[in-house]
Amino acid sequence: MKASEIALLVGGTLEGGHDPELRGVAPLERAAGEELTFLASARYLPYLDACRGGALLVEAALADRGRTTMPRIVVRDVHKALALVLSALYPERRPEAGIHPTAVIGREARIGADATIGAYAVLGDGVTVGARSRVGAHVVVGDGCVLGEDVVLHPQVTLYPGVVVGARSVLHSGVRAGVDGFGYVFVDGQHRKVPQVGGCVIGADVEIGANTTIDRGSVGTTEIGDDVKIDNLVQLGHNVRVGAHTVIVAQVGVSGSTTIGVGVTLAGQAGIQGHIEIGDGATIGGQAGVLGDVPAGAVYSGYPARPHRESLRAQASLFQLPKLIKRLRALERAVFGGGAPEE
Amino acid sequence: MKASEIALLVGGTLEGGHDPELRGVAPLERAAGEELTFLASARYLPYLDACRGGALLVEAALADRGRTTMPRIVVRDVHKALALVLSALYPERRPEAGIHPTAVIGREARIGADATIGAYAVLGDGVTVGARSRVGAHVVVGDGCVLGEDVVLHPQVTLYPGVVVGARSVLHSGVRAGVDGFGYVFVDGQHRKVPQVGGCVIGADVEIGANTTIDRGSVGTTEIGDDVKIDNLVQLGHNVRVGAHTVIVAQVGVSGSTTIGVGVTLAGQAGIQGHIEIGDGATIGGQAGVLGDVPAGAVYSGYPARPHRESLRAQASLFQLPKLIKRLRALERAVFGGGAPEE
Amino acid sequence: MKASEIALLVGGTLEGGHDPELRGVAPLERAAGEELTFLASARYLPYLDACRGGALLVEAALADRGRTTMPRIVVRDVHKALALVLSALYPERRPEAGIHPTAVIGREARIGADATIGAYAVLGDGVTVGARSRVGAHVVVGDGCVLGEDVVLHPQVTLYPGVVVGARSVLHSGVRAGVDGFGYVFVDGQHRKVPQVGGCVIGADVEIGANTTIDRGSVGTTEIGDDVKIDNLVQLGHNVRVGAHTVIVAQVGVSGSTTIGVGVTLAGQAGIQGHIEIGDGATIGGQAGVLGDVPAGAVYSGYPARPHRESLRAQASLFQLPKLIKRLRALERAVFGGGAPEE
Repeated sequence: MKASEIALLVGGTLEGGHDPELRGVAPLERAAGEELTFLASARYLPYLDACRGGALLVEAALADRGRTTMPRIVVRDVHKALALVLSALYPERRPEAGIHPTAVIGREARIGADATIGAYAVLGDGVTVGARSRVGAHVVVGDGCVLGEDVVLHPQVTLYPGVVVGARSVLHSGVRAGVDGFGYVFVDGQHRKVPQVGGCVIGADVEIGANTTIDRGSVGTTEIGDDVKIDNLVQLGHNVRVGAHTVIVAQVGVSGSTTIGVGVTLAGQAGIQGHIEIGDGATIGGQAGVLGDVPAGAVYSGYPARPHRESLRAQASLFQLPKLIKRLRALERAVFGGGAPEE
Repeated sequence: MKASEIALLVGGTLEGGHDPELRGVAPLERAAGEELTFLASARYLPYLDACRGGALLVEAALADRGRTTMPRIVVRDVHKALALVLSALYPERRPEAGIHPTAVIGREARIGADATIGAYAVLGDGVTVGARSRVGAHVVVGDGCVLGEDVVLHPQVTLYPGVVVGARSVLHSGVRAGVDGFGYVFVDGQHRKVPQVGGCVIGADVEIGANTTIDRGSVGTTEIGDDVKIDNLVQLGHNVRVGAHTVIVAQVGVSGSTTIGVGVTLAGQAGIQGHIEIGDGATIGGQAGVLGDVPAGAVYSGYPARPHRESLRAQASLFQLPKLIKRLRALERAVFGGGAPEE
Repeated sequence: MKASEIALLVGGTLEGGHDPELRGVAPLERAAGEELTFLASARYLPYLDACRGGALLVEAALADRGRTTMPRIVVRDVHKALALVLSALYPERRPEAGIHPTAVIGREARIGADATIGAYAVLGDGVTVGARSRVGAHVVVGDGCVLGEDVVLHPQVTLYPGVVVGARSVLHSGVRAGVDGFGYVFVDGQHRKVPQVGGCVIGADVEIGANTTIDRGSVGTTEIGDDVKIDNLVQLGHNVRVGAHTVIVAQVGVSGSTTIGVGVTLAGQAGIQGHIEIGDGATIGGQAGVLGDVPAGAVYSGYPARPHRESLRAQASLFQLPKLIKRLRALERAVFGGGAPEE
C-alpha cells in the first residue's frame, strides 16, 4: 500500500515529500525498510531520530517533535488509525470452511453454512453453530449450546451445556463458560452442593481472553452484554451481569450476583464483592477491592475502594506518617515536657 | 411438584391458600407462571411485589414483608431448602456409561463398572478409574493416577502422573493437578530445576473450580482434605496441605509448604505466603496478604494481614489522616507559633 | 545409592558411622527406612528427633542441632544438593519417541529426530519441532510455530500461530502463548479491535507454569528471555519483554509494553502497570502494585509500590494510627482546653 493510500484510509495528511510503498507495521525501535511505524506518546520520542522505517504515523501534537526524514502521516488519533491500517495490511486468514473428519458431532446438531469445525472438536447433542462460525481444534461444546453467526472459539475452549454466544463474539483458548457456580450449604458437618441450574448468555461482539472462567447462574442467568471486552484469566461468578461496552482487564474477579453497568472499566486484578452494583460508566482502579455499591460515573480505587481522590490523598498521607509521628512527639515534649503521657 | 410436596421436602410450612404445581426455580425479578421463587435477603424485597411466580420460598423473618399474593413456603434457611428443591426439580442427567471409541487407554488401566470415558480422553498406563466415575471429553490422565468411585472430571482436565482423586470429587474444566512445583536453585549463573518428585492427593467429596492449578509435592505430598471446596483460578503450591471442609474462593494463591487447617475460609484473591500455618477455623479476608502464621479461629484481613478488627480500625483511621494533619498543624501553630519546626 | 555416593555427588561429608543404601527422598515428618531426608531450616527442627529416615542431608550450621542417630551428609546448601540427589535417584522417564497415529500434522511440518508427538496433538502448517522435543497429548500448535530442540509441551498447551519456543524450554499444561493482546479503540459507540499482528518469542531454558497466558505483540514482539522461570496462572500482556534469568511467581500480572529487566524477581500476585520499566535485578514484593518505573536493584513493595523500607515503615505506622489519634486529642485538650477546634 502506498503511504498516500494509507493517509486516505485513515483520514490523515501525508507530509514530507515521498510516497513510499509500505508492507507492514513495526514499533519505532524496530521499524525498517518498507515498514510503517508510529508515535502516539512523547514517551517514545527518544527512539524517533534513529528510526529507519518507511513512514511515520503520528498525532498532530507530536508531528513536529524530533528530527526524522521519514514521510509523516499526520492523524488525530494514532490508535484509531492503526486499527484501520493493520486490518488493511494484515488481512485475517480464514481457515477453509468445513467439518474436520475427526470432529465428534452430537445428535440433532445444526451447523450453519460455511462454518468451520476443527480437528477433534466435540459438539454435544442439539448444539447450534451459526453461519461462518469457526470452532477451533479441541473445543468442547456442551449439549444445547447456541453459537450465533461469525463466532470464533479458539482451540481448547469449553462451553458447559446450554451456553449461548452471540454473533461475532470471540472466545480465546482455555475459556470455560457456563461453569458451575460456587454454592454450598453446610448441613450435618459437610458441604452440600447447591445445584447450579441457571444459564450463561454471552452477547454479540464480545471478546473473552484466554483461560478466563465464567460461571453459569445458580438459578437465573449469568449475562455478558454486547461489545463487552474481557481480558485473560478473569473470573466472573454465578449470576453476574455485565452491561454493554464494559471492559474488564486481566485477572479481575467478580463475585456472584454482582451487577456491572454499561461502559464500566475494571482495571487489572481488581476484586469486586458479590451482590453489589457498579454503576454505568464507573471506573475501578487496578487491584482495588470493592466492597459496596459504586455510583454511576465514579472512579474508585484502593482497598477498601473509595473515590479515587480520597484514596490518593490517604495513600499520600500514609507515607508522611513516620514524619508526622516525629512532629507529634516534638509537640508532646513542648506541651507536656518530661511528664508526657505514656505512648 | 406440588407446593405442598416441596414444603414437605424442605420441612417448611405452606401458607396462602393455593397449592400450585411448580416446575422450576427462578429469581424474584424473573419468576413467572409455574416457577418457584425465593427471598433470602431484605435486599431483594423491592422485587417482591411485582413478581408473578407460582410460589415463594421465604425465611420466617421475611415472610410478612411486602405484599404478594403468591403462596409462601416458610422455612428456617432458604439456601438449605433451595439445595433440596433444586436437586428434586432438576435431576442430574448422567451420560450413558461406556468408553467412547476414540478414547486412548494405556496398558494395565482398570476401568470400574459403569464408568464413562469421554471422546478423545487419554488415560496413561496403570490408571485406575473407580466405579461410576465420569471422565469427560479431552481429559488427560497421567500414568498411575487413581480415581475413586463416582469421581467427575469435566472436559479438558489434566492430571499429571500419579495424582490420586478421592470418591465423589468433581474437577472442573481446565484443572491441572500434580503440576511440577516451582523450585530452582541458582548455580553458575543459571537456574537448575529441583526435580519435583512428590505426590498429589485429593480427598473425597472435593470440588475444584475451572482452570485451578495444584502443584505436586517437591518431595513429599500436596494434600487436599475431604470435603474441601475450591473455586476457579486458584493456585496451590507444592506441598500445600489443606484440611477438611476448607473453602477457598476464586483466585486465591497459596505458596509452597503452607498448611491450611480444617474448616478454614480463604476469601477471593487472598495470597498466603509459603511455609506458614493457617489454624483450624480461621477466616482470611478477600485480597488479604498473609505473611505469617494465623491462629485457629482468627479472622485476618488486610496487607500485611492482621486481626480483622485491627485492620478495620487502621483502614478507617487512614482515611482520617488528611484531617489529622490539619489538626496537627493547628496545634503546632498554637504551641510553636511562627517558630514551628520545619515539616 | 549409598550415602557415601551421595556425599560424593553433592560435595558433602558423610558423618555418623553407617553408610546405608538410600532409594528415595522424603520430608522429615515422613521419611522412613531407606529414604534420605533433609533439614534446611531451623523451623523444621522439631521433626528431627522423631524421624526414622535412612540418612539426613543437612547444612553445616544445623548439623549439630537436635539428637538424631541418622547418618548425616553435611553440605553447604541443602537445596542445591537436593537438586542433584533428586536427579540421580529419580531419573526422568522419557516417553518413547514417535508420532502417535492420532496426531494431526499440517502441511510442510518438520519434525526433528527422536521427537515425540502425543495422542491427538494438532500441529498446523509449516510447524517446526526440534530434535528430541516432546509435544504432549492434546497440544495445539498453530501454523508456523517453531520449537527448538528438547522442548517439552505438556498436555493441553495452545500455541497461537507463529510462536517461537527456544531449546529446552518447558511449557506446562494449559499454557496459552501468542494470544491476541487486549487492544481496542472506541469508535462510533463500539469497540473496534486493533488487530494483533505481532510475534511471541520464548527463549531457551524457560519454564512456564500451568494455565499461564502470554499475549503476542500488538505490533512488534512479546519476548521472554533465556532461563526465565514463570509460575502458574501468570498473565503477560502484549509486547512485554522479560529479561534473562527473571523469576515470576504465580498469579502475577504484567500489562502491555512493560519491560522487565534481567534477573528480576516478581513475587506472587504482584501487578505491574503497562508501559513501564523494571530495572535489572529488582525485586517486587507479593501483591505489590507497581505504577511507575523501578530502578535496577531496588526492592519495592506495597500499593502503590515504593521502596520496601518506606513501605514497611508506612505499614507499621498505619497500625499505630488509632493510638496516635488519642495522643493528638490529649494534646488538643492540653493546648486548647474546652475550646479545641472542631474535629
